Amino acid sequence: MTDFAATKSKFHLPEGIIYLDGNSLGPLPKAASARVTEMVEDEWGEMLITGWNKAGWMALPLALGDRIGRLIGAEPGSVVVGDTLSIKVYQAVASALELVPQRRVILSDNGNFPSDLYMAEGLLCSLGPEHELRVVDPEDVAAQITEDVAVLMLTEVDYRTGRRHDMKALTELAHANGVITVWDLAHSAGAIEVDLAGCKADFAVGCTYKYLNGGPGAPAFIYVAPRLSDKVRPALSGWLGHASPFAFDLDYRPGAGIERMRVGTPPIIQMSALSVAMDIWDMADMAQVRAKSIELTELFITQVEATCPGLTLASPRDPALRGSQVSFRFDEGYAAMQALIARGVIGDFRAPDVMRFGFTPLYIDETDVGRAVDILADIIGNRLWDRPEYKIRQRVT
Amino acid sequence: MTDFAATKSKFHLPEGIIYLDGNSLGPLPKAASARVTEMVEDEWGEMLITGWNKAGWMALPLALGDRIGRLIGAEPGSVVVGDTLSIKVYQAVASALELVPQRRVILSDNGNFPSDLYMAEGLLCSLGPEHELRVVDPEDVAAQITEDVAVLMLTEVDYRTGRRHDMKALTELAHANGVITVWDLAHSAGAIEVDLAGCKADFAVGCTYKYLNGGPGAPAFIYVAPRLSDKVRPALSGWLGHASPFAFDLDYRPGAGIERMRVGTPPIIQMSALSVAMDIWDMADMAQVRAKSIELTELFITQVEATCPGLTLASPRDPALRGSQVSFRFDEGYAAMQALIARGVIGDFRAPDVMRFGFTPLYIDETDVGRAVDILADIIGNRLWDRPEYKIRQRVT
Repeated sequence: MTDFAATKSKFHLPEGIIYLDGNSLGPLPKAASARVTEMVEDEWGEMLITGWNKAGWMALPLALGDRIGRLIGAEPGSVVVGDTLSIKVYQAVASALELVPQRRVILSDNGNFPSDLYMAEGLLCSLGPEHELRVVDPEDVAAQITEDVAVLMLTEVDYRTGRRHDMKALTELAHANGVITVWDLAHSAGAIEVDLAGCKADFAVGCTYKYLNGGPGAPAFIYVAPRLSDKVRPALSGWLGHASPFAFDLDYRPGAGIERMRVGTPPIIQMSALSVAMDIWDMADMAQVRAKSIELTELFITQVEATCPGLTLASPRDPALRGSQVSFRFDEGYAAMQALIARGVIGDFRAPDVMRFGFTPLYIDETDVGRAVDILADIIGNRLWDRPEYKIRQRVT
Repeated sequence: MTDFAATKSKFHLPEGIIYLDGNSLGPLPKAASARVTEMVEDEWGEMLITGWNKAGWMALPLALGDRIGRLIGAEPGSVVVGDTLSIKVYQAVASALELVPQRRVILSDNGNFPSDLYMAEGLLCSLGPEHELRVVDPEDVAAQITEDVAVLMLTEVDYRTGRRHDMKALTELAHANGVITVWDLAHSAGAIEVDLAGCKADFAVGCTYKYLNGGPGAPAFIYVAPRLSDKVRPALSGWLGHASPFAFDLDYRPGAGIERMRVGTPPIIQMSALSVAMDIWDMADMAQVRAKSIELTELFITQVEATCPGLTLASPRDPALRGSQVSFRFDEGYAAMQALIARGVIGDFRAPDVMRFGFTPLYIDETDVGRAVDILADIIGNRLWDRPEYKIRQRVT
């Protein structure tokens, strides 16, 4: 059994804060600071260049990839860590398109995270005007999987509402139509059960600074199905994806399997923090995390609806259809979120009116949910959001 | 005047080590560990998501870019930090190509770092078979700048020999032929004086973990000339390069100037280490660093040639024609380098026979050079390299 009290004890959570924004940036694992210090002082400081081999830096992208892979149902050796999520989206989509060379359409939806759409748009612009990025409503995706589509590029869980796509069904439908799939797991990895191998997903990408708690700007990951990974051409063909990077050949030869999706020199300090976050994940069973997440979100929805008039559920009511976050619409959502943050409950806001709350069983429990709802009910019931200082909008992430 | 004793005191150099490999990975600034700890504990730990604004994380890529820009003669606001060097090469070349849409050739040389060639190869493969990566000998580059060339992509200082291209002359010649330039400054930034604005360079890229001492996997940087930066299309069009990233528009609109070359979420832990390295650079005048570098490399060459028979200078003899490294060819170079490292002098080896030594005035002085040569002379003169354990080749970076 996953011991959630034990996992919670592994995180530093600031005094008096209930942190419901782990879907934006996970909190600090207590052991991360010491590990980063050790990496900086004992490895970088003492080993210098020899750290690449002696401290195992060069092996981190694949080692971390396997640890993440366990959480998302990936085969061993099919995930590698590096770069940012946007870069990994580009890499996946560029490779995917070439597997269906006679087609020119990328299908996505308007619930996708904008950067995924931007990266695809940028790629297609490079490839030429005969290509098309077709963006439809989420509920129309299935009907739009037609035989002119090359790649289906979706984020499994909507970053605003938590609405979840059916990965297995859509992947099957895609394959039945000769379409390659690219799944963005930004709000899935560490949030819900994902079974990439079981769904026969082709490509997947994700980030490690949200539910995985890797730290600000922690690197991304990419999955390529083993049946494809020796076939795909990496468009971003960097030296660390080369079959023999230290031969310094003038011509590119892709490395074996997922190795070819590596690009440049990996960010070792970030990875040392991420490795500590993965130590905590090693204590967790994803099915139990998901079960606990559903308990917490159900509790939150029930209590908010009972105590906060004016807030309308924006997330699917059926927990099977949503990720590990709950969003409510409220006309004064921006001000209400500022008031809530001022009271120590950190969620976030997405325009025009969405109050967003992430539920992360590794460090959020029922008591936290109850306290958060009490404060929210006080703010709503007593119109405590109605102060000028809460209405000044600043750029938020 | 740059106080080199003062800058040297700012670095942690392991006891008994003379580190002549700062051209691969710079050493640890003493203050980096405390700064990283502060960032991890006080910013990530306490501010959580609010650190993006409150701790200024979001502004780091441009702030660090300007600090690097001072060292490479870049206009303020023309450099941004992020991603890896390979990604930045791709970004620069992709944008550069579109400025000359009627041409299809990238010209480079076989002294370029292989990853630059691989990234260009990968890009051109995506763009279609009418494109060509033309790789010539370094001495033939000038003659090959013809009117069918779209982009001249060169690394200014050769990673193996330290041979330096004439950036100003080649850029002028390129422009006279309607060619856009992409300069890789991996072995230039912090190593030699670079005057991007004065040379009218178009694009430049570089890394921060070599002479700039940003740490293992520290992020890269990209420069776009201000006359171009509002015109170029970023092929890697990520959300943080969007004109309004937090509007979450579905369509991409490039940010102003160099901002559009940002892609995804920046690696803040790495950047906090890099910022400390830049604090040391703020103490330095690049002309004085260059003058001191020439003194050190001249001293090293003179002494090695006087005391180490069999070693042949592989770097240009004229200091104006080389960077801040010196390479010698020696048939048993691999074993000799292992013997040298075993004695505490860290340089590195590049196949087939190049012994490479980086000279970094911020923390290497004449005494270090003298001691390094004494040890090398002992190893060569007494054939101390001729031991089986020095001949076992391992993967080195």
